[in-house]
Amino acid sequence: MFTEEHSAQIVAASFAEGTDPRLREILTSLVTHAHAFVKDVGLTVDEWAAGVRFLTETGQACTGTRQELILLSDVLGVSMLVETLNNRADGGLTESTVEGPFHLVASPPRALGDSIDDEGAGEPCLVTGRVVDDTGRPVAGAHVDVWQADADGYYDVQRPDEVTPLNLRGLFTADGDGGFRFRTIVPRFYPIPTDGPVGRLLAATGRHPFRPAHIHVEVTAPGVRTLTTHLFVAGDPYLTSDAVFGVKESLVLDFATVDDPERAAAAGLPNPFRAVDIPLTVHRRRDAAAGAG
Amino acid sequence: MFTEEHSAQIVAASFAEGTDPRLREILTSLVTHAHAFVKDVGLTVDEWAAGVRFLTETGQACTGTRQELILLSDVLGVSMLVETLNNRADGGLTESTVEGPFHLVASPPRALGDSIDDEGAGEPCLVTGRVVDDTGRPVAGAHVDVWQADADGYYDVQRPDEVTPLNLRGLFTADGDGGFRFRTIVPRFYPIPTDGPVGRLLAATGRHPFRPAHIHVEVTAPGVRTLTTHLFVAGDPYLTSDAVFGVKESLVLDFATVDDPERAAAAGLPNPFRAVDIPLTVHRRRDAAAGAG
Repeated sequence: MFTEEHSAQIVAASFAEGTDPRLREILTSLVTHAHAFVKDVGLTVDEWAAGVRFLTETGQACTGTRQELILLSDVLGVSMLVETLNNRADGGLTESTVEGPFHLVASPPRALGDSIDDEGAGEPCLVTGRVVDDTGRPVAGAHVDVWQADADGYYDVQRPDEVTPLNLRGLFTADGDGGFRFRTIVPRFYPIPTDGPVGRLLAATGRHPFRPAHIHVEVTAPGVRTLTTHLFVAGDPYLTSDAVFGVKESLVLDFATVDDPERAAAAGLPNPFRAVDIPLTVHRRRDAAAGAG
Repeated sequence: MFTEEHSAQIVAASFAEGTDPRLREILTSLVTHAHAFVKDVGLTVDEWAAGVRFLTETGQACTGTRQELILLSDVLGVSMLVETLNNRADGGLTESTVEGPFHLVASPPRALGDSIDDEGAGEPCLVTGRVVDDTGRPVAGAHVDVWQADADGYYDVQRPDEVTPLNLRGLFTADGDGGFRFRTIVPRFYPIPTDGPVGRLLAATGRHPFRPAHIHVEVTAPGVRTLTTHLFVAGDPYLTSDAVFGVKESLVLDFATVDDPERAAAAGLPNPFRAVDIPLTVHRRRDAAAGAG
């Protein structure tokens, strides 16, 4: 029977012996932390009821194209923690960050050097990079999927009636040396949606809704662990206060202004232009027999 | 910027100085425990996604007459913990338990000795009791609101087309000595709703959905703290495994069989009948100037 002192153990003991061991482990920890939270803050009945209402409204704000619960997980840093735990960037690997909610459509395959900008609004930018593995070997033919917001801070899918579909998305195949390059525009910071329960939470805690400007990159290749990350634009005003905590120091890159008419002409860009180089180091899976994955 | 090591502190630091101090305290503890949970179990991305889906479905299962998130809080013992924390039964007070989801309608006022059973199906039962405060003084004229399931395990509101409205509900006014009495039938155990996400959680953890048989009691009177509790029927098969952890040892009472034609006739019951006596001790608020509430 129930006692305040042993409340969490009593609930944990209710999960039957035959329960999937991993589910039981997760639920036992969840209950232990949930009860400790209630006790630590001395949660009142009214506060509990407010929490129930908030979570109910968060679930009910979800639709086919909006996931308010993921947004809640994002603004509480939980999504970023899960991403980081599951993709530890030891040994010089490029750090990962959350995929975000805008990778909704398959990026169109484009040739190296192509532009992903079909609208021509924004500061022209040349992106170059190279994919290597954790032994320094190039990952020839790696797929480099990129997507980003435009100069107003919107993704194509947010303005379907105003911009070319698949604008600012591209799927590139690295060359034999792991190299890739494409033209784009410098992205802008943008707000996460604030018209739901999560927006109210941000307002109540004096937090702004902005994410600093970034380009999303996802690298896949046979035999390597998929890398999902962003590259952030140095100098953005929101780098130290990303609403979803997605920024890691190593992912902030200099999008330098280049004044070089010859290089501009070679890249097919006006002069001057911005340029960024993205070195990407991915984890190559060892032979399964060696025990590493 | 984000680091795995300081993830919770980084999120907590995002809550602005001007935030309501209590909200900030609650959110800081919530984030600390949520991040500790993720780290303790090493939550995978797939497990996180399954959790997001489960909470989304739980929110979306809520309607005007169903609150699946409260049900989730109930089956994880959180509701009972909050109730207990906020109504500590020190010094001989009657212990409290959760109100539950069936106190949806106002109970009809009835005279002492009346029956709350309008259907006549079930084992006749005489309930007697007395409300006193924590100094032993009777609480004359206390309102004693009772509601219960029928002999099949249903509340009136669950079968609106089949039973008399307000069946097995009654609002009694205690006499000058705090005493009350009414006739009813012995309630039966019943399942909580299992056709939603919470039902799936119970099934996955090998738990049954039953609540042991009980009569709900809510006592209100000027100057005393409202007491919300259940009285459980000794011998019920689910006393030690209540799906919502509502049972406390002191709330289990003997519903004894009485074979006494004279007493039966006096109470207006057939012989033999069941009988239970419910002593209720409520907390009288001290003068505010004395510092107790």
